[in-house]
Amino acid sequence: MKIISIIGNGNVATHLYRAFNRIAPTLSSLPEVKIINSRTLEGLPEMSDLLLISVKDDAIKDVAERLKGKGKLMAHTSGSVGMEILNGCCDKTGVFYPLQTFSKEKELDYEEIPFFIEGEDEETAGELADYARLISRNVTFADSQQRKQLHISAVFACNFSNHLVALADKLLQENGMDYKLLLPLLKETVKKLETLTPQGAQTGPAVRGDLKILKSHEEMLKDNKEMLEIYRLLSESIRRTKGI
Amino acid sequence: MKIISIIGNGNVATHLYRAFNRIAPTLSSLPEVKIINSRTLEGLPEMSDLLLISVKDDAIKDVAERLKGKGKLMAHTSGSVGMEILNGCCDKTGVFYPLQTFSKEKELDYEEIPFFIEGEDEETAGELADYARLISRNVTFADSQQRKQLHISAVFACNFSNHLVALADKLLQENGMDYKLLLPLLKETVKKLETLTPQGAQTGPAVRGDLKILKSHEEMLKDNKEMLEIYRLLSESIRRTKGI
Repeated sequence: MKIISIIGNGNVATHLYRAFNRIAPTLSSLPEVKIINSRTLEGLPEMSDLLLISVKDDAIKDVAERLKGKGKLMAHTSGSVGMEILNGCCDKTGVFYPLQTFSKEKELDYEEIPFFIEGEDEETAGELADYARLISRNVTFADSQQRKQLHISAVFACNFSNHLVALADKLLQENGMDYKLLLPLLKETVKKLETLTPQGAQTGPAVRGDLKILKSHEEMLKDNKEMLEIYRLLSESIRRTKGI
Repeated sequence: MKIISIIGNGNVATHLYRAFNRIAPTLSSLPEVKIINSRTLEGLPEMSDLLLISVKDDAIKDVAERLKGKGKLMAHTSGSVGMEILNGCCDKTGVFYPLQTFSKEKELDYEEIPFFIEGEDEETAGELADYARLISRNVTFADSQQRKQLHISAVFACNFSNHLVALADKLLQENGMDYKLLLPLLKETVKKLETLTPQGAQTGPAVRGDLKILKSHEEMLKDNKEMLEIYRLLSESIRRTKGI
């Protein structure tokens, strides 16, 4: 039986642990999966087939050093850190990056999560991809440069979008409503992108060139410097993209 | 049989026409629905039970004037324009605002669309709400102030978010990938908001206070002034919201 040790206790580590524990028990060779505290390394097996380091970027190097000799294959799960940070810490190294927004409280359909794999050689990459395919139907390869671009793109598309909803929620709450009223709209905004490109799907006053509404919105936001600045910058960006 | 005339040929007019035409034919009193070009008014019935004005905000006043005497009840569909713009154009006036992102090419589940209704008196509001309930299960009342806040909130949560995906797409395309890789992430970003508040759902380097990643992302964007500015402004705003 293969032993997978996941080092970390953040959102990603927690969800990877759940995902590997949820593999259909009909599989011939179920792995044994452990989740290990990165500070104490308590309970770490003498030898793991796969060491998955899922800690803050700053801590990867240190944790990897402390895991020397403890695994046959070592990978980190970060979108922003190169593979080479693991050099010298294990015979075979790579990256095992799930492109998803993880919150401990929220269950996930792991099969849908895109995993981006990198390995120091083809064999290692293939082996990591095999592990990823145990939990996801969506496994591809990406080098460090591509992975960094995926990560920053995810910050724009997901982290920033979520924050825009938080800002909208604040406005709505000040007027006796809340963000839940926006949920059908948000769902449709994403659903449209299955059939239209984001440029083709763009709606709203900025892309229509409706200067009167833009002006009245700026007027409404005049006492909220932060939202006003965001409103202006993004509206200008939409207009520039459209070429108006 | 009630006659509904929808004046306009934009995305909203087109979808309202489709929605009213899709009402289950088992209903006892199906309305007759017409879509009328706002310039020519060709084919406008002598008298409509409901005139729905679905044109650009700037044109509402002019179209309403030209529709005098042609309807028993008149409403516009704009999020940003007050009800009073229709004063004097019909005995009964109101607002019929669907909070959704409409693209002609994209089919919609109309039943889910939130409609926000306002009427110059209770009876008119009730009548408009009855029309809205023919096509949606999600009908509520909102005054002009609330409607304006809903509209600007939708710009933040939907229009701006979609544009962030367009910017991400540009980055990805420059690296041989595209925005479709982000779709599982986008779906989950919205799905989380069914159980977590946007503040509780926030993930990413800014809310974690991961200054190293923030810096490396800014470095990656240094030749893209527009995206760099958006990255900085939104990351700061996330950090301010979190109080870090």
